Amino acid sequence: MSHIINFSAGPSILPKVVFEEASQAVLNLNGTGLSILEVSHRSAYFEPILHEAMALVRELLGLPDDYEVMFLSGGASTQFFMSVMNLLPEGKKAAYVDTGVWSSKAIHEAKMIASIDVIASSKDKNYSYIPKGFDISPDFEYLHTTSNNTIYGTQYQSWPDSPIPMVCDMSSDIFSKPIEPHRFGMIYAGAQKNLGPAGVTLVIVRKDMLGKINKTLPTMLRYETHIQNESMYNTPPVFPIYVSMLTLRWLKNLGGLGAMQQMNERKARHVYDVIDSIPFYVGHSVPEDRSRMNVTFNLEDAALNKEFQTYCEEAGCDGLKGHKSVGGFRASIYNAMPEDGVKILAEVMKEFALKHA
Amino acid sequence: MSHIINFSAGPSILPKVVFEEASQAVLNLNGTGLSILEVSHRSAYFEPILHEAMALVRELLGLPDDYEVMFLSGGASTQFFMSVMNLLPEGKKAAYVDTGVWSSKAIHEAKMIASIDVIASSKDKNYSYIPKGFDISPDFEYLHTTSNNTIYGTQYQSWPDSPIPMVCDMSSDIFSKPIEPHRFGMIYAGAQKNLGPAGVTLVIVRKDMLGKINKTLPTMLRYETHIQNESMYNTPPVFPIYVSMLTLRWLKNLGGLGAMQQMNERKARHVYDVIDSIPFYVGHSVPEDRSRMNVTFNLEDAALNKEFQTYCEEAGCDGLKGHKSVGGFRASIYNAMPEDGVKILAEVMKEFALKHA
Repeated sequence: MSHIINFSAGPSILPKVVFEEASQAVLNLNGTGLSILEVSHRSAYFEPILHEAMALVRELLGLPDDYEVMFLSGGASTQFFMSVMNLLPEGKKAAYVDTGVWSSKAIHEAKMIASIDVIASSKDKNYSYIPKGFDISPDFEYLHTTSNNTIYGTQYQSWPDSPIPMVCDMSSDIFSKPIEPHRFGMIYAGAQKNLGPAGVTLVIVRKDMLGKINKTLPTMLRYETHIQNESMYNTPPVFPIYVSMLTLRWLKNLGGLGAMQQMNERKARHVYDVIDSIPFYVGHSVPEDRSRMNVTFNLEDAALNKEFQTYCEEAGCDGLKGHKSVGGFRASIYNAMPEDGVKILAEVMKEFALKHA
Repeated sequence: MSHIINFSAGPSILPKVVFEEASQAVLNLNGTGLSILEVSHRSAYFEPILHEAMALVRELLGLPDDYEVMFLSGGASTQFFMSVMNLLPEGKKAAYVDTGVWSSKAIHEAKMIASIDVIASSKDKNYSYIPKGFDISPDFEYLHTTSNNTIYGTQYQSWPDSPIPMVCDMSSDIFSKPIEPHRFGMIYAGAQKNLGPAGVTLVIVRKDMLGKINKTLPTMLRYETHIQNESMYNTPPVFPIYVSMLTLRWLKNLGGLGAMQQMNERKARHVYDVIDSIPFYVGHSVPEDRSRMNVTFNLEDAALNKEFQTYCEEAGCDGLKGHKSVGGFRASIYNAMPEDGVKILAEVMKEFALKHA
């Protein structure tokens, strides 16, 4: 097969047109004669790109004016502690929900520097569901959640009715469906799933969340630094921001987050239908919390794992190996995965099950 | 002019062959059928790239085995405080040399979290020289220096005989000439001048500098985290690392740092010769400390600034406007600037002076 369908969990597939435009810009950015890799960030070549990217984030997510948009570096892993340093005043506590490895890392980093409580967890069943119906005390400063759990294939399909703002790691499902911004005091997301290539992190903070900290932080660790300097306090990751802007343009042209959500629902159904109709495959997540981004499943007979993987690869389906915490397989079907790609995987799964019936 | 010569201070020019290879890899990485922007960092597509980049850093700089090489994000600005947090034990002091805006920022960040002394400065003459002959007490833990000062066009041509290890910000001249690794306990450099595009930071630490800190740091702020995980604790900036690897390959094929130094000396001479022979131009740096990377100069008659800039731009010379701290002009002539580009600038300068003689 010369054409590979990339089901990788991240960094992951981006739209073909984005690859084409980005490739051209590496040679010659918009006919300027300069490569996007060599232009100054403080130039008329780059500043409009940054501003367009920020405006598209606002428009697509429907952010009110009291939200600030930043493009930072260091990944979501850096936001695990930066969020706490910037948002949690001394003497106050934050609440966390534990829905997997990434939540746990956020919890670990927060505990190192502040006082937090884990108020709900799905660890008891290897994170195969999203906890529900837990109490959220209004005494907490905020509630930290992880919207989609790539490793386990779970995703919040509705949000808890929280009396406090949520701080949410949306790394693996941001821009996959509309959000309700008013629920969130802060949103952060590594780019490398639905937004762009690895190397940039989107951070969104509501203004009223800031200004509560007395401690002096290093300049680069303060959100105010990046807000006041429009993400240009230091040299930003120019190319990752450029490619993110191209991806956001593609998303807008496609009809925005409502249209994207419909496509993602339809795509996910192709694979979940196979899992639900053929007992040969066993889904990891409980049906009501299934992720539309990452479909996780095991073969009933794990002895066939290797053969299944090879079978998929021969059909061009790449990157399906599951994470070691869950085993089996994971099909990551982010925004840029075409419906035809998912259909091919569903067919391959059916054929393979039939072969071993 | 369709061909632009990019004299920008950073992000800045990279080799043409690197642009071509990078552009191709955005469409199809080494014939894999996948874009470099979509491959998993934990894959056979990327890991050899990361390892080759690390090996080339070692080989080109001649680093002994007791130096660790990391590719991080957050820019040199993040290293301003990360270096202090990781290297300066409680109760110990570090010494700093102030040679300009970037040194001053490093000093500012260090002072916020630790005890340091500025033991030498060239602020008295608007940073137009490199301080020399100052005493360095062996009681300091390390000496922080900035090897090349982009804004002022100064550069250490020889190092102080320091009884303590140097921690050096080499952002704007790393890989431009051979270094003597034994002088340095740590070296750091934002990529966006001689190494690659914006979005990755090279950090080199000698092992004996580590392990002296008792304080618990957030995981992402500990050098040990990134060393133990070979810069893959979190998703690294894949594309900026890939392009850096291509640039290092180009540098090796060219003959390495010795050959590069000869070329850089020759290139710089073309412009400094014009400055020295035509009083119409006034260099900012004292001659003995002149940078081979950034040539800074003013016109004797500042009223001609605008006309000079337009004249240069019409000849294809872009990015020459000086930094506001020095005014006038700055020609950044990093590794990838071809000698022909510098010759054109020198000619343009001569012509313009003649026109106004």
